[in-house]
Amino acid sequence: MALIVQKFGGSSVADAKRIQNVASIIAETYRAGNDVVVVVSAQGDTTDDLIAKAYEINKRPAAREMDQLLTAGEQISISLLAMAVEGFGLPVISLLGWQAGFHTNSVYGAARIKNIKTNRLRAEISKHNIVIVAGFQGINRYDDLTTLGRGGSDTSAVAIAAQLHADKCQIFTDVEGVYTADPRKVKNALKLSEITYDEMLELATLGAQVLNNRSVEMAKKYSVKLEVLSSLTKSSGTIVKEKINMEKMLIRGVTKDTDVALISVVGLDDNPGVAFKIFSVLAQKNINVDIILQSVGRDGTKDLTFTVSKDNGVVAIETLGNLSVLENTKITCTTGVAKVSIVGAGMESHPGTASTMFEALYAQNINIKMISTSEIKISVIIDAEEADRAVAAVHNAFLPND
Amino acid sequence: MALIVQKFGGSSVADAKRIQNVASIIAETYRAGNDVVVVVSAQGDTTDDLIAKAYEINKRPAAREMDQLLTAGEQISISLLAMAVEGFGLPVISLLGWQAGFHTNSVYGAARIKNIKTNRLRAEISKHNIVIVAGFQGINRYDDLTTLGRGGSDTSAVAIAAQLHADKCQIFTDVEGVYTADPRKVKNALKLSEITYDEMLELATLGAQVLNNRSVEMAKKYSVKLEVLSSLTKSSGTIVKEKINMEKMLIRGVTKDTDVALISVVGLDDNPGVAFKIFSVLAQKNINVDIILQSVGRDGTKDLTFTVSKDNGVVAIETLGNLSVLENTKITCTTGVAKVSIVGAGMESHPGTASTMFEALYAQNINIKMISTSEIKISVIIDAEEADRAVAAVHNAFLPND
Repeated sequence: MALIVQKFGGSSVADAKRIQNVASIIAETYRAGNDVVVVVSAQGDTTDDLIAKAYEINKRPAAREMDQLLTAGEQISISLLAMAVEGFGLPVISLLGWQAGFHTNSVYGAARIKNIKTNRLRAEISKHNIVIVAGFQGINRYDDLTTLGRGGSDTSAVAIAAQLHADKCQIFTDVEGVYTADPRKVKNALKLSEITYDEMLELATLGAQVLNNRSVEMAKKYSVKLEVLSSLTKSSGTIVKEKINMEKMLIRGVTKDTDVALISVVGLDDNPGVAFKIFSVLAQKNINVDIILQSVGRDGTKDLTFTVSKDNGVVAIETLGNLSVLENTKITCTTGVAKVSIVGAGMESHPGTASTMFEALYAQNINIKMISTSEIKISVIIDAEEADRAVAAVHNAFLPND
Repeated sequence: MALIVQKFGGSSVADAKRIQNVASIIAETYRAGNDVVVVVSAQGDTTDDLIAKAYEINKRPAAREMDQLLTAGEQISISLLAMAVEGFGLPVISLLGWQAGFHTNSVYGAARIKNIKTNRLRAEISKHNIVIVAGFQGINRYDDLTTLGRGGSDTSAVAIAAQLHADKCQIFTDVEGVYTADPRKVKNALKLSEITYDEMLELATLGAQVLNNRSVEMAKKYSVKLEVLSSLTKSSGTIVKEKINMEKMLIRGVTKDTDVALISVVGLDDNPGVAFKIFSVLAQKNINVDIILQSVGRDGTKDLTFTVSKDNGVVAIETLGNLSVLENTKITCTTGVAKVSIVGAGMESHPGTASTMFEALYAQNINIKMISTSEIKISVIIDAEEADRAVAAVHNAFLPND
C-alpha cells in the first residue's frame, strides 16, 4: 500500500462541479488501495476577494489579522471537498493547517514551516481516513494563525510528503505537466515526461509558474518525488526527481520572464568595495538581484548593470541614490525588457549550446543586451516586444518540430 | 473601569459600512475608559450561503464538516472588524472561538459550552487590547471545531460576560429593545425599559426573536446584566435582570408564533402509560412538545392533542405511526395554526387576566382551539390567519393606546 499526497490548486476547486471532479480523482486513488492525503488551496478567487474586503475597510491592515482572515479561504474549500468525498461513500476528514500540525514562525503573510507535528495526520491515516488538509496555513507559538505566502499550498503538500515519507506527491494544475515552452505561445512545445529538481528550479524561477519554487527546493532537500499533472485530463504528467534518464533533448525548456527591470550605474569610481556596498544595501532592502554585468567605462570608471523584478525597480533606484559612493554616477532604470532562458542539465557537456541560442536570435535580428550563464541555464536580456518571437526561434533551434 | 461585553449580530456587520459603524460604537465605549470584549456573528447571509454551498455538494453532509465549514463565517467577520477598529487607532486583536478558550462537547451543530479557558482573553484585556471574539463556535476534546447552533453568538457573549464577571453584556440588534408586541405589526407597541429574565425567557420561547433562549437562561443562572439595544440608533434599550421595579403594566408583551404544528391522536385506549410511551419516543427523537391537551373521547377512549414545531411535524407522525399502542388510533397533523401569548410576571396575582384575553378574542369572533397557562404566561392556539388580528386586539385590551 502506497501513501500518496495530492495537491489541488484554487482553480481545481473553484465550484461545486470541479470539487466533485477532484473528489472523483481522490476516490479513484484511494480505491486503488492507496492511503491518500490531499492538500487544497482556497477556491478560485476567494483569497483575492478577501484581500479586497480587507482593503475596503483598512488600507494597511495588521498582518496578523490579514492571516486570520485569509485562512478562512482554505477552511471553506477543505470542508466542501470532504463533503464531496463523503458523497462517494468514503471515510474522510478535513484538517485545518494547525489541526494537521503545521507549526510556523511568526512572519505573518510569509511564514516558514518550523515543523509538522504529524500525530493527528498519522492517526487519521491509520484509521484509513482520506485526509483533506488546508494548504498555505499554519500556527505560530502564540496560537495565532499564519500563512505561508502565495504558492504556499505547494509547499504544504511537499512538506507533508517529506514528513510522512510519502511515495509520491502529485501536484494537480490546469496544465498537463511541464513543457519545453509555454504551450499557449509555442505550438511545437513538448511535454516533458521527467525533469530534475535543478532544472525545475530554474524553470520555476524563470517564470514557468507551474510549481512554487520553495516547494521544489524542499522536494529536492527531502528527495520527495513530485508529479505535475492536470486535474482535468487523465494523461500522465511530468515527474520531478533527482536524476532522470537523459533523453535525446539537450535542453528542457525555453522560458520568458517579462517581470524584469534593468538598473544601470554609469561612471563608478574604479575602487575596491563599490560592488559590495551596492549589493549589500539592496540585500538589506530584501531586493533580489538577478543578472549582474560589469564593464569598463570611460576615463577609468566602471559601468554596472543588473536586473531586479519590476516591483523593486523604484526602491532600488531610491536606495542607491542615497549611497555616498554613487554621488557622481548616473543611475537609470529601464523596463520594457524581458529575460529569455534555456534550461537543461545536459547543456554543460555541450559547448555549442550557447552559440546555437545566439545564432537563432541573430537570425531573427534580435539584439542581446545582457547574457548570463550557469551550469544548466543560459539567459539573455532582450527587448520585451521581441520576447515571444525569441522564444519560438530558440525553441525551434533546439526542439524542431518533426 | 468597567468591563463591557458587546455582541453584534450578522446584520450589524453585513458590509464594510456597517462594520465601520460597529467599530465606532466599540471605539466610543473603549475611549470612555472601559475594557471591551466584542462577540460577533458571521456577516449577513454568510452562514446561509455556506450551507447552500454544502448542500449543493452533498445533501447530507457530515455534521463535523458542516461545523468546519460554518466557523469560517465568523473568522471572516472578526478579522474584518478588528481591521476596522485598528483604523480608529486603537489596540485590538481578533480571537477565534478556540483561541478565546471556548471548549464544548462534541454535538456538532448544537454543541454546549463546557468551559471557557480565559487565560488568553484575560491576557489580552490586561494589555488593554479590545478583543473581538468569534461567536457561535468552539472546540471539542478532539481539537475539532464545533458550533453552538443558531443564535449561538448570544450564548457566547453571555458566557464570556459570566466567566469574566463583566459589568454588562450589551446585545446589539436591529430593534431598539424589547417591545410589548412586534412594533412592525402593532402600532401602539411599547418599548420596555426593563424586563425580568423569566419574562424574557417566555418572550424568547414564544418567538419574539430578540434574544436566543439559551443565552437568557445562562444570563439568569450567572446573574449577567443584559441590555438589548440597537446598533443603528443611540437610544437606550431594554435591561434584562432578575428583579425589576414593577411598572403599572400587568403584562409585558403579546407575541405570536406561527411555527406550530398540531398533532392529534384520536381513539387512544384508556390505559395507564400511554401518554408516557408517546412522549418518551418523541423525546428520544429530540422533538420538543409544547402545549398538551387530553380529553375524553367516545366509547371510553381518550383523545390527545399537542403542538410541536413545524419542522418536527412529519417526524412526529412517523414516529407515532410505528408505536404499537397507537395501532387503532387516528393520527393527524394540522398546520395553519398560530400560538398567541401574553407574558407578564404581574399576572399571577391578577385573576382576571385570562378572562380579559379571552374576551378580547371573543369580541373579534376568534375561535380558541387550545389553551395553556403558566404563572407568567397564557397561550392560545388559533387559526394562523387570525393571529395578527388577535395580537392587536389582545394588546389593545391590556395596553390601550393613550
